[in-house]
Amino acid sequence: MSSQEENDGLGGIIDGKAIAAEIRAEIRNDVSSLSSVIPGLATVLVGERKDSATYVRMKIKACSECGMESIHRALPADATEGDIIAVVRALNEDACVHGILVQLPLPDGINEENVLSEISIEKDVDGFHPLNIGKLAMRGREPLFAPCTPRGCIELLKRSGVEISGKEAVVVGRSNIVGLPVSLLLMHENATVTITHSRTVDLASVVRRADIVVAAVGRTEMVKADWLKPGCVVIDVGMNSKPDSTRKSGYRLVGDVDFEGCRKKASLVTPVPGGVGPMTIAMLLRNCADAAMKCEKSAAQ
Amino acid sequence: MSSQEENDGLGGIIDGKAIAAEIRAEIRNDVSSLSSVIPGLATVLVGERKDSATYVRMKIKACSECGMESIHRALPADATEGDIIAVVRALNEDACVHGILVQLPLPDGINEENVLSEISIEKDVDGFHPLNIGKLAMRGREPLFAPCTPRGCIELLKRSGVEISGKEAVVVGRSNIVGLPVSLLLMHENATVTITHSRTVDLASVVRRADIVVAAVGRTEMVKADWLKPGCVVIDVGMNSKPDSTRKSGYRLVGDVDFEGCRKKASLVTPVPGGVGPMTIAMLLRNCADAAMKCEKSAAQ
Ligand SMILES: NC(=O)C1=CN([C@@H]2O[C@H](COP(=O)(O)OP(=O)(O)OC[C@H]3O[C@@H](n4cnc5c(N)ncnc54)[C@H](OP(=O)(O)O)[C@@H]3O)[C@@H](O)[C@H]2O)C=CC1
Ligand SMILES: NC(=O)C1=CN([C@@H]2O[C@H](COP(=O)(O)OP(=O)(O)OC[C@H]3O[C@@H](n4cnc5c(N)ncnc54)[C@H](OP(=O)(O)O)[C@@H]3O)[C@@H](O)[C@H]2O)C=CC1
Repeated sequence: MSSQEENDGLGGIIDGKAIAAEIRAEIRNDVSSLSSVIPGLATVLVGERKDSATYVRMKIKACSECGMESIHRALPADATEGDIIAVVRALNEDACVHGILVQLPLPDGINEENVLSEISIEKDVDGFHPLNIGKLAMRGREPLFAPCTPRGCIELLKRSGVEISGKEAVVVGRSNIVGLPVSLLLMHENATVTITHSRTVDLASVVRRADIVVAAVGRTEMVKADWLKPGCVVIDVGMNSKPDSTRKSGYRLVGDVDFEGCRKKASLVTPVPGGVGPMTIAMLLRNCADAAMKCEKSAAQ
Repeated sequence: MSSQEENDGLGGIIDGKAIAAEIRAEIRNDVSSLSSVIPGLATVLVGERKDSATYVRMKIKACSECGMESIHRALPADATEGDIIAVVRALNEDACVHGILVQLPLPDGINEENVLSEISIEKDVDGFHPLNIGKLAMRGREPLFAPCTPRGCIELLKRSGVEISGKEAVVVGRSNIVGLPVSLLLMHENATVTITHSRTVDLASVVRRADIVVAAVGRTEMVKADWLKPGCVVIDVGMNSKPDSTRKSGYRLVGDVDFEGCRKKASLVTPVPGGVGPMTIAMLLRNCADAAMKCEKSAAQ
C-alpha cells in the first residue's frame, strides 16, 4: 500500500487489494479462534444473469478462503416473490446461517423491498434493511451491520492513515446502497459532509472544496483532475465498462474518476479495479464473521 | 406571511404562526370530513418538569382546536421503565389512539430508546423510530411519519415559495431529532446538502455557501450576518433563553441566529418565537390526522 509520505504528497495509490487481503487475514484469524460456531453465509441467486452469478461465485470462494461455510440457494428466473421469500424465511430459521445475501438485481416484476425486508435483521449482512439504515443514520444507535461498500470506503481511508474528522468530504451520488450510507458514515467520523447528485448545480466547484471525495455515480471517468483540490484523497466506487479494442473482451473496467488525470492532483486515489471493489467482499465476510462471533458469545452466556 | 417579492429581496420574515394556522385550518377541515373516525393523540408525560408539562398542554389544546381527541397519561417521576412501557403498549392496542407522543426528556435512569422503540410504528407520529428514520433516509421508501420539526422546516420553505431543488443548503447541527432528518428531507427535495456540527472547521465559510441555512444548534444567536450569503433564506430552529432584564421572567426566547443582524442580509428569515416553533405542533397534528385518515380508508376497504 502506498501512503502519502511515500509519494511526496501527490499521486499515491490506495491499494484496495492489499488492504482487503489484510482484512481477510484478520477474519480468517477470528474465524479460527471460534470454538463452537462456523460462520455461514447464505447466498440467494435468482435467474441466470452472468454478472450476478460471477459476484456470487466470488463471494462463495472468499468465504471458503476465510474458513467460512457458504450455503447457496439458486432459483429459476421465473421464481415468484413467494418462492424467494420462502427461501429467505427458511434461511432465517437455519442456525448454521449467520448472514443472508440476496444477490441484486432481482428479475423484473419482483419487488426487491418486499424480499429484502424479509431477511432477519440479525442476518442482514448487506446492511440494507431500513432498520439498519435508520440505526446507521442516528447517533448513539449501533446498526447491527453497516452496508459493505460504504464500510469498505471508510476502512480504506482509515487504513491509509487519512484523517477524516474535521475534514470536508464531498460524496457524489446519493443511492441507498453507496452514496447515502457512505455520507452517514463520514458524518459519524466527524467529517463535514456534502451530498451531491444529478440535481447539484456546478458539481465541479462543489467537489473542489473537498479534502475527501467519494465518487459513486456510475458515470465513466466523470470526475476530472481540475475538479480536485490539490492534495485531496479520492475514493472511486464506480465500476463502468469502457470500450477498449486492445482487450480480448473489447472493454475494460474503469471508475467514476479519471484516474490518470486525478492521480497527479490528489495525494491518494483508489484505482479501478483494485480499489473499493475487493473491499466490498471483505466487509461482507467481516459482517458475517461478526454475526457468528456474536452468536458464539451469546450462546456462552 | 411576507414573501421575497414584497421585500425587495431583503429582510423578509417567514411568519411561522400564520403558516401553522393555515395548516391547522387544513387539518380541521380534513378531520371534519372523516365520517367514522376521530383522530386521537395520546400524550405520555412522566414526572413534573414544568417545560414538559407546558409542551404537553399546548399539544392537547391544539388537538381540541382541530377537532381531535387527546388521551393523556401522566406518570410519577419515579415510574419505572416497565411502567412507562406498559402504558405505551396499552395505547398501542387502543383503537381510539392514532398517534402516541412520549414527551422527552424522560427522567434520568430511563432508557429513552427502549421506551420509544415500543411505540407501534403505525402510531409513531413523532417519527423518531429507527425504522421511520431509515425509510426517511432511503430513496423510494416512504416513512410512515417524518419527524415534526424537520417537516415543519420544509413546509415553511415551500409555503414561502422558496425553491429548494438545485440549491445549496447548509444545516448546522446533526441531531437525531432535527439536524439529521432535516438534512435528509432537503436532500430528497434535491438540494445539495452540507451537514455541519461541532467538529466542522471554519463554520462561517461553510454557511456562507448556502442558499438555504437551517440552524439547529442550541447556541444563542450564534449565526451572524457576516456568515450569510446575501439573499439567502434562513430557518432558525433554535430555542434558547437569553437574560433580559426588561422582561418579568428575566429572560426572553431567542434562536440560534442573530435575527436583527441576519435579516439585513437574508431574503427571508424565521423569527423566534413565531417561526419554526408553531410548525412543530402543526406537523404533529398533521401526522396524527394522516394516521386516522389512513385508518378510515383501510377500514373502508
Ligand atoms: N465497488 C463496488 O463494490 C460497488 C460499485 N458500485 C458502482 O458504484 C457506482 C454507483 O453505484 P450506485 O450508487 O448503485 O448507482 P445509482 O445509479 O443507484 O446512483 C447513482 C447516483 O449518482 C448520481 N448521479 C448520476 N449522474 C450524475 C451526474 N451527472 N452528476 C452528479 N450525480 C450524478 C445519481 O443522482 P440522482 O440521485 O439525482 O439520480 C445517483 O444518486 C456504479 O458505477 C456501480 O457500479 C456500486 C456498488 C458496489
Ligand atoms: N422549534 C422547535 O420546535 C424545536 C426547537 N429545538 C431547538 O433546536 C436547537 C437544536 O436542538 P437539538 O437538535 O435537539 O440539539 P442537540 O444539542 O441535540 O444538537 C445540537 C447540534 O449542534 C451542534 N453544535 C453544537 N455546538 C456547535 C457549534 N459551536 N458549532 C457547530 N455545531 C454545533 C452539535 O454538534 P455535535 O453533534 O458535534 O455535538 C449537534 O449536532 C435547540 O435550541 C432546541 O431547543 C429542538 C427541537 C424542536
